[in-house]
Amino acid sequence: MGEKIALWGFGVMNKIMLKYLIENNYQIATVIGGRDHGKDAGEAAGLEYLGVKVIRPEEADDVLRETRPVLCILSTISGLSLIMDQLVILARNRVNVLTINEDAFYSWSIQPQLTQEIDSMFRQNLVTFTGTGYFDLLGCYFGSLLVGISHKVDKISMKVQFTLDDFGVGDEDGVGLSIEEFEKKFAESKGEIAYIWPPVEALAFRLGWKILAISQKHEPTLAPVDIQSKQYGVIEQGRATGFKAIVTCKALRQDNQVAEIEAQSIGCIYHGDMEDYCEWETIGVPSLTLKMPKPDTNAITCASTVNRIKDCIKARPGYVTVVEMGPIA
Amino acid sequence: MGEKIALWGFGVMNKIMLKYLIENNYQIATVIGGRDHGKDAGEAAGLEYLGVKVIRPEEADDVLRETRPVLCILSTISGLSLIMDQLVILARNRVNVLTINEDAFYSWSIQPQLTQEIDSMFRQNLVTFTGTGYFDLLGCYFGSLLVGISHKVDKISMKVQFTLDDFGVGDEDGVGLSIEEFEKKFAESKGEIAYIWPPVEALAFRLGWKILAISQKHEPTLAPVDIQSKQYGVIEQGRATGFKAIVTCKALRQDNQVAEIEAQSIGCIYHGDMEDYCEWETIGVPSLTLKMPKPDTNAITCASTVNRIKDCIKARPGYVTVVEMGPIA
Repeated sequence: MGEKIALWGFGVMNKIMLKYLIENNYQIATVIGGRDHGKDAGEAAGLEYLGVKVIRPEEADDVLRETRPVLCILSTISGLSLIMDQLVILARNRVNVLTINEDAFYSWSIQPQLTQEIDSMFRQNLVTFTGTGYFDLLGCYFGSLLVGISHKVDKISMKVQFTLDDFGVGDEDGVGLSIEEFEKKFAESKGEIAYIWPPVEALAFRLGWKILAISQKHEPTLAPVDIQSKQYGVIEQGRATGFKAIVTCKALRQDNQVAEIEAQSIGCIYHGDMEDYCEWETIGVPSLTLKMPKPDTNAITCASTVNRIKDCIKARPGYVTVVEMGPIA
Repeated sequence: MGEKIALWGFGVMNKIMLKYLIENNYQIATVIGGRDHGKDAGEAAGLEYLGVKVIRPEEADDVLRETRPVLCILSTISGLSLIMDQLVILARNRVNVLTINEDAFYSWSIQPQLTQEIDSMFRQNLVTFTGTGYFDLLGCYFGSLLVGISHKVDKISMKVQFTLDDFGVGDEDGVGLSIEEFEKKFAESKGEIAYIWPPVEALAFRLGWKILAISQKHEPTLAPVDIQSKQYGVIEQGRATGFKAIVTCKALRQDNQVAEIEAQSIGCIYHGDMEDYCEWETIGVPSLTLKMPKPDTNAITCASTVNRIKDCIKARPGYVTVVEMGPIA
C-alpha cells in the first residue's frame, strides 16, 4: 500500500482525487468535508464502500493527530487567506499539503506576508506546502518547453477558454451585462487577483526572467448575435457572454532584453462551434503555436495533483512551488 | 564571451547553428566542412565576416588540438556508424559532442555495441556525447508532460508530418510508386531504423516504462486525385505521394499494465490544405490531444541543440542522452 493521504474538502474535485488515490493504491487516512458527515467517503463519491467516514472540520485536528497522514490534498476554497486556519491545523500535525488553491500556485509576490508566514510555519513543522493543479503543467511547463526549443522568445501567450454553462449561475462573471455595466462592475473588483496571475509569475521564475511589471484587466466577451445559454437563457446581441481576464507581464530575459508574458482566461457562454481549449503561442525565432482542444479540466487538475504527491513529500520543508520541483516525472 | 564551440559539417543546419551561436555570444573555435574550404565561415553562412575559415576534415585533428573548443556540434550525416571516425577525433581531443544524428538520440538498443564503444571512448577522455535536435523536446518531453497531467495513459501517439517538396528529389521516399512497387521497395529496406524509433525508446525510458516489443513498418501515402508536385511533377491518383514510417512499441508501466507508444513520421507531397504539423494524442484518463501546426523544423532543431550546450558540458563523461538531462532549462 502507498502512503496515507488525507482529503480536506469533499466537493467535485476531491471526489475525483479520492478515486485516483484509491486506484493508485494510496491509503485514505481521513476525509474532511462540509457535508455528508458520517457517511462513507467512498459511497459519497459514487465509488465502492471505503470504510472511511466523512468528518467535520471541527474534528480535523484530533483525527489528523490520530491517523497521521503523510500528506493532505486541500481543495476547499479560493484565496490564500481563506485556507489559513486549515493550514495551521495541518502544519501543526506535521502533514504535507498539496492544494489546488489558485493563489498558492505562486504567491510570493501577490501575498508576500501571508506566504512568509506559511513558509515559516511549514518549515518549523518540517513539512511542505505546495500549490498545484491545472496550471502545474499547463501554466508553466508547456510554456517553458516552447522556450527550450526556441532560439529567442519575445512574447509568450497562454490562453485557456471554458464555457460558463458548465458552472452554476453566478453574478461574478458579468453574463448579460451591457459594456457600461460590465466596466462599472469590474472597475470595482480590481483588487482580486485573476487566477491566471500566479502561473504567469511561476513561468517567469521558471525561465529565469526578472519581472519588471505585471498587471491585469478584464474585458467583456460580447454576443455577436442573440445567444441561447443553458444557464442564463437568451443573451442579447452586444451584451456580455462572460469575460476575459488578461494578465500582462514585462520581464527581463537573461540577455537583458525585455520580453512579454501574457495569459488570458476566457470564461463565457459559447455560440457556434466554440469549444474549450488551452493554447500557447510564442513570438520569436521561431514563432510557435501549440493547442490542446477540449482539455478535461477536472481530470487534469486531479491527476496533476495526485501525481505531485511524491514530489511534495520529498521536497524540503516550507513553501515549495512546483516551479522548483521540475515537471512531474 | 561564452565557451569556444566547434562546428563539424557546414550544410543548412550548421549554418543556422553558427548564427544562433554568434547571437548567443559563443566563440567559434573552428568550422569543419565538406566544401567552402578556406572561405570565411560567417560569409559562407550568409552572415557577417567572422574571421574563422572553413577547414577540411583532414585538418580537424590538428586544428582541434590547437584551438581547444569545449564542445563540437556535429551535423554531418545520418547513421551512428558513419560518424564514428569523426567521434574518434573529437573524443581524443577532449571535445564534448552534441549531434543531430538521429540514431544518437537514443542508441543503446538499436546499436548496442557501437554505443558501448562510444560511451567508453568518451568516458576515457572525460567528455560527453549527446544526441539532440528536433526530437529533444518534441519527441520526448511533450509526451512525458502529457503523461504527467494524466491519471492513466494506455496509449501515446506522436505524429510528425512534412512535405517532401521541401527537399531535393530522391528515390528513397517512394514518390510516384504503385502500391506493389512501394511494398517491394520497402520490404528490401527493412534493416534501416526509422528516425522516429530512437525518440520512442527515449520516451519509454523517460517514463520509466519497460519496453516489451518494438517494431516498425512503412506504408505508402496515396494520391486521392492527380497531384501536382513542385519537385516530382504530376503524381497520378492511386500512386504513392510518399510514406509513413510507423514505429509501434509495447511497454510495461509501473503498475505492470501494458501500454503502447506509437510514432508516425509522414513525409509526402501535399495536396489541398495539408500542412506540416507535430501532434501528440493520448488515450487514457483523460484522453488528450496536443497539436503544433507548421513547426519551423530547422529553427527548432538548431535552437534545441544550441540550448543544450550547457547541459552537455556539465554532464558526466560518456554517452549521456537528453532523457537523463531533463527538459532544456
